[in-house]
Amino acid sequence: MASSLGELTEHVRAFAREREWERFHTPKNLAMALGGEVGELLAELQWLTPEQASAVMSDPELGPRVRAEIGDVTIYLVRLADVLGIDLVEAAVEKLEEAGRRYPVEAARGSARGIPSSHDIG
Amino acid sequence: MASSLGELTEHVRAFAREREWERFHTPKNLAMALGGEVGELLAELQWLTPEQASAVMSDPELGPRVRAEIGDVTIYLVRLADVLGIDLVEAAVEKLEEAGRRYPVEAARGSARGIPSSHDIG
Amino acid sequence: MASSLGELTEHVRAFAREREWERFHTPKNLAMALGGEVGELLAELQWLTPEQASAVMSDPELGPRVRAEIGDVTIYLVRLADVLGIDLVEAAVEKLEEAGRRYPVEAARGSARGIPSSHDIG
Amino acid sequence: MASSLGELTEHVRAFAREREWERFHTPKNLAMALGGEVGELLAELQWLTPEQASAVMSDPELGPRVRAEIGDVTIYLVRLADVLGIDLVEAAVEKLEEAGRRYPVEAARGSARGIPSSHDIG
Repeated sequence: MASSLGELTEHVRAFAREREWERFHTPKNLAMALGGEVGELLAELQWLTPEQASAVMSDPELGPRVRAEIGDVTIYLVRLADVLGIDLVEAAVEKLEEAGRRYPVEAARGSARGIPSSHDIG
Repeated sequence: MASSLGELTEHVRAFAREREWERFHTPKNLAMALGGEVGELLAELQWLTPEQASAVMSDPELGPRVRAEIGDVTIYLVRLADVLGIDLVEAAVEKLEEAGRRYPVEAARGSARGIPSSHDIG
Repeated sequence: MASSLGELTEHVRAFAREREWERFHTPKNLAMALGGEVGELLAELQWLTPEQASAVMSDPELGPRVRAEIGDVTIYLVRLADVLGIDLVEAAVEKLEEAGRRYPVEAARGSARGIPSSHDIG
Repeated sequence: MASSLGELTEHVRAFAREREWERFHTPKNLAMALGGEVGELLAELQWLTPEQASAVMSDPELGPRVRAEIGDVTIYLVRLADVLGIDLVEAAVEKLEEAGRRYPVEAARGSARGIPSSHDIG
């Protein structure tokens, strides 16, 4: 059982290899699969009010469904990164540090508008 | 510098807290942000042929762009999981094990059609 | 200037042909492009409160941006439907009629939960 | 039966009103629903080879599924545009004309690289 990101990566890699599905796991196909799973996640939350969404994990029916979609998104992201040879955590840290330079704490906090632009973190 | 998923999660959490952006990081908003970043990833690959896409990380201009988008997707996925209280790796492993039961190796490999259904892994 | 969906379809078709971009407009590529543009639309709205989002078209900066993304999504949806030989309005009407049978007015309105499932209309 | 975009718009509007679903049809929710449906469309095509995808509408099982997803995407795009007060065709034509100025025919066709940037049309 994988308990770390590296083990999960190997687990997904082996899963694909055992079933001879590697030929389907091209970068474009995996990006599309990632889009499909994020779509399923959006669908689980789309009609909820902000309050219902914030409490969704306590809902006995919706909580497991959201958890399942998060799991699916993670599987495909890990697989895509593996196929592309990208270290997920390193790539994320680089973007976060870049965002930190673009939005230093004082300026971001004191912003009159208060709304991050769509690209504040990513 | 985060070198593990747990450290990255804390890093993103602190990033949001320092800038007082926590009020924007609701589950619905973060799911939308994740959709936006996956969209940017799709956009980087959409016009490439399968061959060009497979070699994209060697392209001096496109490689870094794809890496950046993967970083952004990871940041928002990690943040969303944190806000929802979901362990990404555990959720992924559960889905993978469930998929393993649904598609045992022998059956999946010997499939005449050879194409995984859209929900084979996730 | 196109004023109907049919004219828009021809306009987009000619646009692609004149630039010899037809070879890029495969179903998978166009679906990815559609995903990319919907992602950009999500990004414009993601940090807005529900109130801000409802008034977004009155915002002198955000209104035009949202309109632009809606325009882009429409272009790619029209192009994809054209390439696949699908009549957008007919396909939509069929799904709407199917949804009408699945969710007859009396039952839908009287629902205690009051929340459409994620697949109520689509 | 709607045979034009305007009639479809009214049809979807009435569908929502009759079921008292208008309160769910906020701009953010509808954008999320659009993301969900585009995700379902991506999922139908993701594992297909380019050749299989180009012939998908001839496939007796996949053709109707793709048509259904295109129908769903259209329903939500039309509904979102209606709620925002945007004329879909006008917004698309404006973007197309802008793209035409950015990528005049001679320059686009003669491009050595031959690949449109991710934002060529949209």
